[in-house]
Amino acid sequence: MFKEIKRLLIGRPLKNEAIHGEKFGVLWGLPILSSDAISSVAYAGQEILIVLLPAIGMLAFKQLTYISAAIIVLLAILTLSYRQTIDSYPNGGGAFIVAKENIGSIAGVVAGSALSISYILTVSVSIASGVDQIVSAFTQLEHYRVLLCILIILLMTIGNLRGVRESAAIFSLPTYFFIISILFMLVMGVIKVFNGYQPEPLNIAQDTLQPLTLFLILQAFTNGCAALTGVEAVSNAVPNFREPSTKNAKTVLVLLSTLVLIVFGGTSIIANYYPTDPEKGAMLVQISNMIFGRTFPFYIITALSFVILVLAANTAYFGFPNLISVMAKEGYVPRQLNMRGDRLSYSNGIILLSGIAILLIIAFNANITSLIGLYAIGVFISFTLSQAGMLLKWLNQKGENWIVKASINGFGALVTFGVVIVIAITKFAQGTWIVVIVIPILVFMMQKVKKHYIAVSKQLRIKPEELQSIQVERDTYRNRVIVPIESINKSSIRALRYAKTISDNVVAFSVSIDEENANKLRERYNMINTDIPLIIKYSPFRKVVEPLLKFIESAEYDYNKGDMITVILPQFSVRSWWHRVLHNQTRVFIERELLKHKHIVVAVMPLQLKDDDYVLKHPKYQDR
Amino acid sequence: MFKEIKRLLIGRPLKNEAIHGEKFGVLWGLPILSSDAISSVAYAGQEILIVLLPAIGMLAFKQLTYISAAIIVLLAILTLSYRQTIDSYPNGGGAFIVAKENIGSIAGVVAGSALSISYILTVSVSIASGVDQIVSAFTQLEHYRVLLCILIILLMTIGNLRGVRESAAIFSLPTYFFIISILFMLVMGVIKVFNGYQPEPLNIAQDTLQPLTLFLILQAFTNGCAALTGVEAVSNAVPNFREPSTKNAKTVLVLLSTLVLIVFGGTSIIANYYPTDPEKGAMLVQISNMIFGRTFPFYIITALSFVILVLAANTAYFGFPNLISVMAKEGYVPRQLNMRGDRLSYSNGIILLSGIAILLIIAFNANITSLIGLYAIGVFISFTLSQAGMLLKWLNQKGENWIVKASINGFGALVTFGVVIVIAITKFAQGTWIVVIVIPILVFMMQKVKKHYIAVSKQLRIKPEELQSIQVERDTYRNRVIVPIESINKSSIRALRYAKTISDNVVAFSVSIDEENANKLRERYNMINTDIPLIIKYSPFRKVVEPLLKFIESAEYDYNKGDMITVILPQFSVRSWWHRVLHNQTRVFIERELLKHKHIVVAVMPLQLKDDDYVLKHPKYQDR
Repeated sequence: MFKEIKRLLIGRPLKNEAIHGEKFGVLWGLPILSSDAISSVAYAGQEILIVLLPAIGMLAFKQLTYISAAIIVLLAILTLSYRQTIDSYPNGGGAFIVAKENIGSIAGVVAGSALSISYILTVSVSIASGVDQIVSAFTQLEHYRVLLCILIILLMTIGNLRGVRESAAIFSLPTYFFIISILFMLVMGVIKVFNGYQPEPLNIAQDTLQPLTLFLILQAFTNGCAALTGVEAVSNAVPNFREPSTKNAKTVLVLLSTLVLIVFGGTSIIANYYPTDPEKGAMLVQISNMIFGRTFPFYIITALSFVILVLAANTAYFGFPNLISVMAKEGYVPRQLNMRGDRLSYSNGIILLSGIAILLIIAFNANITSLIGLYAIGVFISFTLSQAGMLLKWLNQKGENWIVKASINGFGALVTFGVVIVIAITKFAQGTWIVVIVIPILVFMMQKVKKHYIAVSKQLRIKPEELQSIQVERDTYRNRVIVPIESINKSSIRALRYAKTISDNVVAFSVSIDEENANKLRERYNMINTDIPLIIKYSPFRKVVEPLLKFIESAEYDYNKGDMITVILPQFSVRSWWHRVLHNQTRVFIERELLKHKHIVVAVMPLQLKDDDYVLKHPKYQDR
Repeated sequence: MFKEIKRLLIGRPLKNEAIHGEKFGVLWGLPILSSDAISSVAYAGQEILIVLLPAIGMLAFKQLTYISAAIIVLLAILTLSYRQTIDSYPNGGGAFIVAKENIGSIAGVVAGSALSISYILTVSVSIASGVDQIVSAFTQLEHYRVLLCILIILLMTIGNLRGVRESAAIFSLPTYFFIISILFMLVMGVIKVFNGYQPEPLNIAQDTLQPLTLFLILQAFTNGCAALTGVEAVSNAVPNFREPSTKNAKTVLVLLSTLVLIVFGGTSIIANYYPTDPEKGAMLVQISNMIFGRTFPFYIITALSFVILVLAANTAYFGFPNLISVMAKEGYVPRQLNMRGDRLSYSNGIILLSGIAILLIIAFNANITSLIGLYAIGVFISFTLSQAGMLLKWLNQKGENWIVKASINGFGALVTFGVVIVIAITKFAQGTWIVVIVIPILVFMMQKVKKHYIAVSKQLRIKPEELQSIQVERDTYRNRVIVPIESINKSSIRALRYAKTISDNVVAFSVSIDEENANKLRERYNMINTDIPLIIKYSPFRKVVEPLLKFIESAEYDYNKGDMITVILPQFSVRSWWHRVLHNQTRVFIERELLKHKHIVVAVMPLQLKDDDYVLKHPKYQDR
């Protein structure tokens, strides 16, 4: 039944060859990769106001325009820089690869960790903001903020487990609709202002206002920087583009920046004429309410903002699994993260992403302001390392126009590094210290993982010249068998019979909590025709493994070093998923404990159970 | 490392014999078992007001007193009834046992399901209310309501996994302190009223008031019935009492009822003089704020209310695991739920309880009003079945004074059945429909589980007279071996050698995604000295199991029915928990798939890995 549900939700498995079909061009690539950057219009401006409004009152709206302009300049610098990255890395120029190849493996791992964190926060922040839009429009849902976030992330997980192409198909059109609807709102807003619209003044306590300090502006700027998170995704996703993939990716990157300029810039300007109070809900929802009232366009814009934020979160469902699959290939994270699922998506990566994003939503109570600092610092650390890597690349390889190229990437590195410092300082108390702690831990762990994989492959390796000296013969060593039994039943008899076919040194072994049970068992055992001796041990801890291991080591068993011991464990072969739950998993625990010993092989013997109804009706099984 | 954390959190394992020490007398039994009923003072009154206050305004406080009186009468009836249950069932007279023995197995299972639901809701409601107290006193915590609930439940889970006695020791004193502090508050409240205290009038919109209907009163009554949930726990916990356990349990039951009378009754009366608005936080917190202001006693009472509610939730950590372990013994729920953990507590039951309680907290957003209907109906369904069972018991067995006894239980059954009907009707839309759906599903599932266990034991059973005809011989059938290999490395060579010792019919098997890889493998394989043939199959799905099974069924393999096939799977024997994560679990999946076939035995062969540092430094493993 689980399988059927999985099939229903995730679809039929795809063949290896299908992988090349799951790619996109400019038309689909743009909405998928730009949604992250464009959707930030829904929270970046609002988070700037959250910092400034309580401090400087209505002046905040003027500052919002300036800060947005600064952020758009930053975006232009990044666009220029990343066009060069795309050119140089047609197989995906994520910060991990660029930093690792040009700076060194530690830098690569730092960039990879930072980027992983920011992908996870893309999901948390975008979904929290998406739900914020809905809740701002329909305030009665306020109590279900966290629950709604979790449900949406779960739905997205299923969608993405289905595979790349289908998610693109589902999610493409709304982005375009969103862009059109925001442009429409901007135009209508301007017309309304020309027609003499006067907003209600905001109710801000004048006596709490403070002077506008540099620190405040930088803090606001930091919040706005969350708008720049989609850029990396494009350069990382180059191999997901159809040919010519490099050109397609660069086109998408430029289009993306232009769209952010128009949508984010335009909204920041119009906010001057439609001042909003972030305390009272999402900024976009409030502005469109002022422009349209509670009419059809208002609901459309709210719905589309929500959808595009979901889409933005979806960007991370490409970026994150791809990134960690690359890191898994290199041995920095567990290999499973490089295994594609039935539908050719990186299932483990997708599930990991959703899991951590949900934890963050719960821990930070779906609060965007708390999450946004973590988000921005992760992104800008990877920006810095990626640009620094590109700079070193030009310095080393030179080539045509290398001085111009090096200057562009060098300037990018410098600016983004400056932003990292600003974010770290202004937001330290609000959570960026977490990133400062987590990244070194991740880097340490990844180095350990890499070391382990290298050590394992060295241990397993047989060099070609050694192959000819290898002998696989019957009499390398002796195999002995132990059959743990609980009682004399059809299952234990079957195990004893199997034991006899694989060895002529077999022992039946049982634990008992008291003498009475031991005697009963021995009595029944003595009635069957076998030359296999039965050993019964008293076990005060109700456990099998310890007495069994003690027995093996005892003089009684007379074990010769070099021999293998096969322990046979019966296992019900269950007919349906719920039967699995009904048979306690002691076999799994015993198996795990025994397998810690290199001289013990565990042979699991299935016992097929008949259908319950059949057994209960068939006269053979009834008491006579 | 996991083991060490587990040990640290849960403590050292206890021996079987230790189980008899883990019991309590009246002094400890009272706080443990009464906390549920007594703590309801923190929410029952408040939930009555939530229904009445918006409808009838200040008149609600008079009605609160009447409804509380009715609930206390109900408690007296239940106390009388349940004293008889305790006498008749010294081994624990839970509704499940009483209903099953006297009415029938279906009734028992219904009672068990209803009771399980109400135990789970004891945790959800009590913890939600506990956090409500804290949040009402410290409003800045409002945003972390759900998170706080989850954290507390997790802490309780750990505490209870440590075992019965220690939790009692930790949790006993606060209950007594709580009772004393409430009495102190009542006395101080009365003194303040005599000194002429006048409360601020509540701000209730007069125009929304409605007439006081019977439906309203019944709805309020339903909410109050949640105060009666601790009674069942006493009769269920009889075997947890020290000898004379029956007498101790009855004493505790009577003391419990008296305490509820004083604490709950007293608070309901004093609420008339200190009217509170449930919209503005927990009732107890508001009353003590009015009486004491924000002084030391206020904080003490808030803290103790919180602690006693945690204690109340803790009641369920006795009741639920005990109940389902009884049901597991009878085969109605999975057997694992009857397995005691290292510390002799029913670990699986405890974890299950916490898991569902947390899910409910998240789903209902820690809202008491939403949860309380589900809570009350579960409790009263089990009350009804338990009392009806007792009635039938007296009618069947007669005995001394049976008419009086039958009348008491019969009256109890009648009254509680009436309450079930009232709850179902008044709260249907607010969630009791869930219980109406869930109980039949649970009952259906439990019957299926029971049937399965019976069918399994019938299949496995060997009757004594059959034992003598059983032969365990070497030549029952032939054993053949298949060794799946990915490449020629030390692990696969080891598996091939083992295969040779257990059979002389061995085949090496490999899947390949293309010709090139297949040729490379065969080239290396041909260099080693062995007579084992290598079979290579093309696998488009990157999977091993399907081609392997297809090969076994093919004419190429020439498999004789009746033979066993042993498939050898190597498994890294990992040195630490994090290494386990690093080796992908394909072995587990392959094993599970193969074990669906009754003629396949899976032999898992451990390969011990050396320490990473050792391998990386030792010259033996370096490239020459």
